[in-house]
Amino acid sequence: MIRGRAIQVAVIGPSECSEEEAAAAEEIGSVLAAHGATLVSGGLGGVMEASCRGARVRGGLVVGILPGQSEGNQYLSVAVRTGLSHTRNFLVVGSADSVVAVGGAYGTLSEIAIALKQGKPVFGLNTWDIEGVAPCTMPEEAALKALSAGRP
Amino acid sequence: MIRGRAIQVAVIGPSECSEEEAAAAEEIGSVLAAHGATLVSGGLGGVMEASCRGARVRGGLVVGILPGQSEGNQYLSVAVRTGLSHTRNFLVVGSADSVVAVGGAYGTLSEIAIALKQGKPVFGLNTWDIEGVAPCTMPEEAALKALSAGRP
Amino acid sequence: MIRGRAIQVAVIGPSECSEEEAAAAEEIGSVLAAHGATLVSGGLGGVMEASCRGARVRGGLVVGILPGQSEGNQYLSVAVRTGLSHTRNFLVVGSADSVVAVGGAYGTLSEIAIALKQGKPVFGLNTWDIEGVAPCTMPEEAALKALSAGRP
Amino acid sequence: MIRGRAIQVAVIGPSECSEEEAAAAEEIGSVLAAHGATLVSGGLGGVMEASCRGARVRGGLVVGILPGQSEGNQYLSVAVRTGLSHTRNFLVVGSADSVVAVGGAYGTLSEIAIALKQGKPVFGLNTWDIEGVAPCTMPEEAALKALSAGRP
Repeated sequence: MIRGRAIQVAVIGPSECSEEEAAAAEEIGSVLAAHGATLVSGGLGGVMEASCRGARVRGGLVVGILPGQSEGNQYLSVAVRTGLSHTRNFLVVGSADSVVAVGGAYGTLSEIAIALKQGKPVFGLNTWDIEGVAPCTMPEEAALKALSAGRP
Repeated sequence: MIRGRAIQVAVIGPSECSEEEAAAAEEIGSVLAAHGATLVSGGLGGVMEASCRGARVRGGLVVGILPGQSEGNQYLSVAVRTGLSHTRNFLVVGSADSVVAVGGAYGTLSEIAIALKQGKPVFGLNTWDIEGVAPCTMPEEAALKALSAGRP
Repeated sequence: MIRGRAIQVAVIGPSECSEEEAAAAEEIGSVLAAHGATLVSGGLGGVMEASCRGARVRGGLVVGILPGQSEGNQYLSVAVRTGLSHTRNFLVVGSADSVVAVGGAYGTLSEIAIALKQGKPVFGLNTWDIEGVAPCTMPEEAALKALSAGRP
Repeated sequence: MIRGRAIQVAVIGPSECSEEEAAAAEEIGSVLAAHGATLVSGGLGGVMEASCRGARVRGGLVVGILPGQSEGNQYLSVAVRTGLSHTRNFLVVGSADSVVAVGGAYGTLSEIAIALKQGKPVFGLNTWDIEGVAPCTMPEEAALKALSAGRP
């Protein structure tokens, strides 16, 4: 009998993003799924959707922690409908064993800050330059470091 | 490629329960998993743990929406760490397509009330007698009715 | 120098109500303010607004714990904008030293259940008949009993 | 009859702070109260408590939006007990018409980010150097600018 859960990695970033950011997020999701990790995200568009697509196509388990009562993007395996609006950012990060940030503006900054306050490992790709965030240059690098850092 | 999510059924009830309630919750979890549903619960002990055990043993996907930053019971496939204390009750019910209540005191009553306010189907086994809750006499009956009512 | 806070009494009830319920809620707010209590409510219309009006006209301090980012009704002294949707019900009750429920449907039932779970005194006027709610027949009676029960 | 609420200014900062930060926060609270503003804070110690003390001594209205079910510091006029842990940071900022940040680490950074995402004016005193935060050099300056920016 299988017990216990897989490592949970959050990919955070804006709901509107560049093609480059989307490609990076998709690759990160794919690498996470290939290693058996569960992807946690805010469940909407942009970086969130791209990471979900990458993970789901690879057969991964994809959890969307949504701001409202909607269904989120089409790649979610599980839809957690919070009704908490942006406050759900706390739950995305709180549910993660490690975090990868791709791009992003103030919303992503709030999630990075919460993750760092909770002492979680945060890896960044073209995102805020905040002390505590480990900058990465390649998507696969970010995903692999998050997998390694999030393991118990 | 697989898209979309399975039906999500919440099993709600107290963190301390009778053996009879635990047996009922376990059977409900098992029936839900056998039909491919995702089980959503508060992720702790009692009725919650019994339903999770029933679903996980049967190979089901089990989501625990936890009050704090803890790991929850050992049968969770996914741990959503909310840090919201009892307020997470809203999220358990909000994430459900239909709800089964087993036993319970005031916490369960709050979840029943939230579910009914959101217009969700609620099936009850030896729980509060509130207008809008469909009373059931057998665990399998409650599970099957919740599956049927939660489908789009 | 003044330190410490006044007793905080929550008046809960539906956002749409009968004239009789509004009159009762207004009187309760007035009595609470006359005794120096702070009124806590969900800050919107119906029973909420009527109780706020009664308290504010009498010079009372009125706190609205709002579901969104709006301003709430015009009688609030303080607007707490939660962005939590109905989940803010937990905060209304959590911030109360005692609770008066006037009328109400499932939303009010969820607040009653949360209050009882937290062990708070709940007084009811024409509301749900739940074990633990002390039924009252007159608005002034409900207000005075809530004042008395909420004192440390 | 008095209607409407006073401007609400949040003073944010760490629960442990230097004497200099405490003195600055206290002066800010005092200036805000002298101008009739309502002070909103997280209601605990450090910068929060110092700002509350400054405002309350001056006769101001002081609202503490608390993480748990506790009473918060002794200078609160109103205790909003959220039970949401750090997630209450969103509510502190959401309830503010403008924000003053004093010092601070990751928790304060999360609040700054949320405020900027919500488009609220943020004034900083010896805090994070984030685009969008208007740096100030004197406590009175920060308070007066926040009062001016928060008015409708």
